[in-house]
Amino acid sequence: MAGLKVGRGAHAPAFLVMDVIAAANARAAAIPPGEPGILRMEVGQPGTGAPRGAAEAAIRALRDGHPMGYTEAFGLRSLRERIAARYRDHYGAAIPAERIAVTVGASGAFPLAFLSAFDTGDRVAMAAPYYPPYANILTALGMVPQLLPCDASTRFQPTVAMLEALDPRPAGLIVASPCNPAGTMLAPDELAAIARWCEAKGVRLISDEIYHGLSYGMAEETAAAHSASAIVVNSFSKYFSMTGWRVGWLVLPEDLVRPVERLAQNLFISAPHVAQVAAEAAMDCTEELEANRAAYRRSRDLLLAGLPAAGFDRIAAADGAFYIWADIGQLTNDSPAFCARMLAEAGIAATPGVDFDPGRGARFLRFSYCGPEADMAEAPERLRRWLRP
Amino acid sequence: MAGLKVGRGAHAPAFLVMDVIAAANARAAAIPPGEPGILRMEVGQPGTGAPRGAAEAAIRALRDGHPMGYTEAFGLRSLRERIAARYRDHYGAAIPAERIAVTVGASGAFPLAFLSAFDTGDRVAMAAPYYPPYANILTALGMVPQLLPCDASTRFQPTVAMLEALDPRPAGLIVASPCNPAGTMLAPDELAAIARWCEAKGVRLISDEIYHGLSYGMAEETAAAHSASAIVVNSFSKYFSMTGWRVGWLVLPEDLVRPVERLAQNLFISAPHVAQVAAEAAMDCTEELEANRAAYRRSRDLLLAGLPAAGFDRIAAADGAFYIWADIGQLTNDSPAFCARMLAEAGIAATPGVDFDPGRGARFLRFSYCGPEADMAEAPERLRRWLRP
Repeated sequence: MAGLKVGRGAHAPAFLVMDVIAAANARAAAIPPGEPGILRMEVGQPGTGAPRGAAEAAIRALRDGHPMGYTEAFGLRSLRERIAARYRDHYGAAIPAERIAVTVGASGAFPLAFLSAFDTGDRVAMAAPYYPPYANILTALGMVPQLLPCDASTRFQPTVAMLEALDPRPAGLIVASPCNPAGTMLAPDELAAIARWCEAKGVRLISDEIYHGLSYGMAEETAAAHSASAIVVNSFSKYFSMTGWRVGWLVLPEDLVRPVERLAQNLFISAPHVAQVAAEAAMDCTEELEANRAAYRRSRDLLLAGLPAAGFDRIAAADGAFYIWADIGQLTNDSPAFCARMLAEAGIAATPGVDFDPGRGARFLRFSYCGPEADMAEAPERLRRWLRP
Repeated sequence: MAGLKVGRGAHAPAFLVMDVIAAANARAAAIPPGEPGILRMEVGQPGTGAPRGAAEAAIRALRDGHPMGYTEAFGLRSLRERIAARYRDHYGAAIPAERIAVTVGASGAFPLAFLSAFDTGDRVAMAAPYYPPYANILTALGMVPQLLPCDASTRFQPTVAMLEALDPRPAGLIVASPCNPAGTMLAPDELAAIARWCEAKGVRLISDEIYHGLSYGMAEETAAAHSASAIVVNSFSKYFSMTGWRVGWLVLPEDLVRPVERLAQNLFISAPHVAQVAAEAAMDCTEELEANRAAYRRSRDLLLAGLPAAGFDRIAAADGAFYIWADIGQLTNDSPAFCARMLAEAGIAATPGVDFDPGRGARFLRFSYCGPEADMAEAPERLRRWLRP
């Protein structure tokens, strides 16, 4: 065979968390019955599954012989209208259903947003630490991630002052509130200020609001309420607990509605039909979803109360999502090795920070608390016995 | 608001067929009850829906409370093994499950294939007429489609001689057999010769085999049996009749397995879980699927028998898929106007060729025969009355 080239995209880095999950699986499988299991604090998906009403809507439609063909590229009209209604009810924002595009998860939303708004070589800024696919998708598409190193002094979030200091100005900015991995939020007035700055300066704002619904005190605000040019990304994977169904959505500015529709026709045809039916029903499952959130809050409170005594006393403001971002610089400067030891010796899996911040992640780790509540209750004491025996 | 730029991807052309579908919907809605309806020959998806066993497997899993979280990026192991077994049983080809990647439809497979194999500016050849998203996705990703004008003399398929004549050589070649829109196939030895040529010359072959299972005489062959470097794209949308479920797959060459896995982790996380469960069950629904194929064959035979007398006497070899590609140069040099008149006056929707071949499509149209068999039986006589009253 002649030497065949591979493309730029072939060099996308892996998600390190996938290796951590595999290591935790292997470790869990090797534990004899009756001995304490592995506490899984590395996973980024709810263990709860879709709310019952969502699964039942899917069952009903399938039992009725619904053919489940392609939907329109932007999704079922009824689902788009239901999402638009959520903007009215949840944020007091008037968003017409025409500006809502149902996507194949938030994952499917990012390439549509990036390709419609940016060109090869364009720089797109984001806070570090960040969700790795932001940078990896941009890079695969020939765009250039520009990292804004953030720390606890700004809740690991970007500020207008940081943006003002960028020269040259980037073509776009990604913000996430609550964010993965830090679990921190932008206050509503900070998000509004960033949205206004971006609009005034011609910087395309992409606001990742995938963890909306999972916050524990600070008010949630949507960038769509403060900017006519921002792109909002959201999903049914987190609050609605429907990861593997692959349904998300975009709120699009007017100028990108037709371009994104054409891209979606070509790149996706449509999001999965049965998942759209289930997602629409999930929006009526408030009681079950709020019970999930209450469980996250209890787990969070247990961890915030117990982690400092175990030696994790520099943790980011746990405003939302289900993550705790811990500075472990006093314990290690090699978070992958530290996490490997923690898994082997304490039986607790967590994600080393290098996945989320190549520069400084060697002294951070991410705990996820979307696992079973009993495990989250047990984790601090196990960690304490391990680090301070 | 400052003037915000839009990206290269914003200029992707729409699928014209979407407008045709909308026009046919509008026309159908305006017909009074009791009058003859619109015969839908523009749509590219089976009206049959998923086979019963597939829907029942999904219902069962949902009723059992399966959480339907993310699967591995390459899909459920059991589904990958089942697909690998199909290569053994259907083609006599030994493909390890490790080289199978389950994707979000064939649509989700193309960006993974293109990004892993090609770079910005790379030229990728394909026959014209072609499936429009090939060119539109390549263009959105910064790559360059290179059209090989084909006609009935080569069954609208490329030949090794055409490839030899390309200077400079392209980085890749897309072939499809059976193809959309022409419905023609490459004979097994022609496909093998193209695959060998590509491998010898360092041209990455992408073989779109999405219509395999729907052929009516000519043997189906997979490029994977003839090339260790080819990428094969397939899907559960056509033979398995599961369009809106969004499950497809790739057969990957060894050198692209890890690159595509990393890309898939970042771009898709995984294909929809419940759809993977249904797809696996669909592979056991041979009786129902073969009945669908028999219906397509009857519709095809009715059209091949009736269309010439109606005035459509220059049609491509209808080897497979569910399309008939008709040269209507003797009737018009404006296929969009011709199709609009046909819809208004004969009540038959079809897709003008300009979607599939910007150069010569004004004198072609595509009939799809995946609609109700009775409609396909009625179409030739309606067309005859319209064109030769």
